[in-house]
Amino acid sequence: MPFIQIEMLEGRTVEQKRELVRRITEAVVDVVKCSPEAVKIIIRDMKPENYGEAGVLRADKK
Amino acid sequence: MPFIQIEMLEGRTVEQKRELVRRITEAVVDVVKCSPEAVKIIIRDMKPENYGEAGVLRADKK
Amino acid sequence: MPFIQIEMLEGRTVEQKRELVRRITEAVVDVVKCSPEAVKIIIRDMKPENYGEAGVLRADKK
Amino acid sequence: MPFIQIEMLEGRTVEQKRELVRRITEAVVDVVKCSPEAVKIIIRDMKPENYGEAGVLRADKK
Amino acid sequence: MPFIQIEMLEGRTVEQKRELVRRITEAVVDVVKCSPEAVKIIIRDMKPENYGEAGVLRADKK
Amino acid sequence: MPFIQIEMLEGRTVEQKRELVRRITEAVVDVVKCSPEAVKIIIRDMKPENYGEAGVLRADKK
Repeated sequence: MPFIQIEMLEGRTVEQKRELVRRITEAVVDVVKCSPEAVKIIIRDMKPENYGEAGVLRADKK
Repeated sequence: MPFIQIEMLEGRTVEQKRELVRRITEAVVDVVKCSPEAVKIIIRDMKPENYGEAGVLRADKK
Repeated sequence: MPFIQIEMLEGRTVEQKRELVRRITEAVVDVVKCSPEAVKIIIRDMKPENYGEAGVLRADKK
Repeated sequence: MPFIQIEMLEGRTVEQKRELVRRITEAVVDVVKCSPEAVKIIIRDMKPENYGEAGVLRADKK
Repeated sequence: MPFIQIEMLEGRTVEQKRELVRRITEAVVDVVKCSPEAVKIIIRDMKPENYGEAGVLRADKK
Repeated sequence: MPFIQIEMLEGRTVEQKRELVRRITEAVVDVVKCSPEAVKIIIRDMKPENYGEAGVLRADKK
């Protein structure tokens, strides 16, 4: 606790995920005053065919 | 906003996902009176081994 | 199956939720060819202080 | 209803998932007094690069 | 890890939630061979007006 | 896109939520190279009776 779930389009590198986890944990610890160990982060990679915005699949956007 | 997350068994076509996003966005815009751009939809495909109903995996159902 | 989770700002009426569930179920049944009974929909109402966009809380937007 | 979503690291066998669904459904039915058919369980397998704890990716832990 | 999210209709007692957490943790530890401390469970109570099945709000069912 | 869902125990102030949204958006924009407008954050406040760890409700911890 706190738990953080991140949905983002596939294609980000492991290095980006490493940095994202580091930076978000830092922000949560600073603001919420919990221990780093309490912060759990789940990342879910999405295919463009599985994301829709304004009624259109991301896979269909030019 | 609104965000919609859809869990369904894998196997649906991109065409079905395209139509699902179109139809659900249309319904939300009509009822909630928001703009189409505000409606974000995430689809997650599930393997039959990852879905259980009445204590039984879908992968085990005849 | 399919399960649908809808996050939206608080303040919508029960009548809007009733119509949203009806319309989304209809769309899913038409497109995914499942039974209406298979479609489960969860709605979560959000306070403006619990939603952030572009780094700003909705509660802080004029 | 009730719906249960389980996030866990990838690598568990179908047999473990089968047993997990059986045992959790049994627990929910006993405690909440609902029918087994009402209990729906979704399992999501996570890659170690998609899970962070204490600011560190699981993929980076020795 | 594992994380478990439970959506269920409001109205269950704290005693039922206590027992549910105990029983589910026990099941997960037995099957997945993780420590009890690794198992995190979130329960979300739902209003009948926020749950739809077969196109109908639970609040509207007799 | 990206969407971020944060589950944390109730009791944090609006000021903490404001700062959390600001800091997390900043981190995501820096690392994932998306626009601030693309980053959506949902916060869910949890009652201690709705959170279990190691088989015990947080509401029962001394």
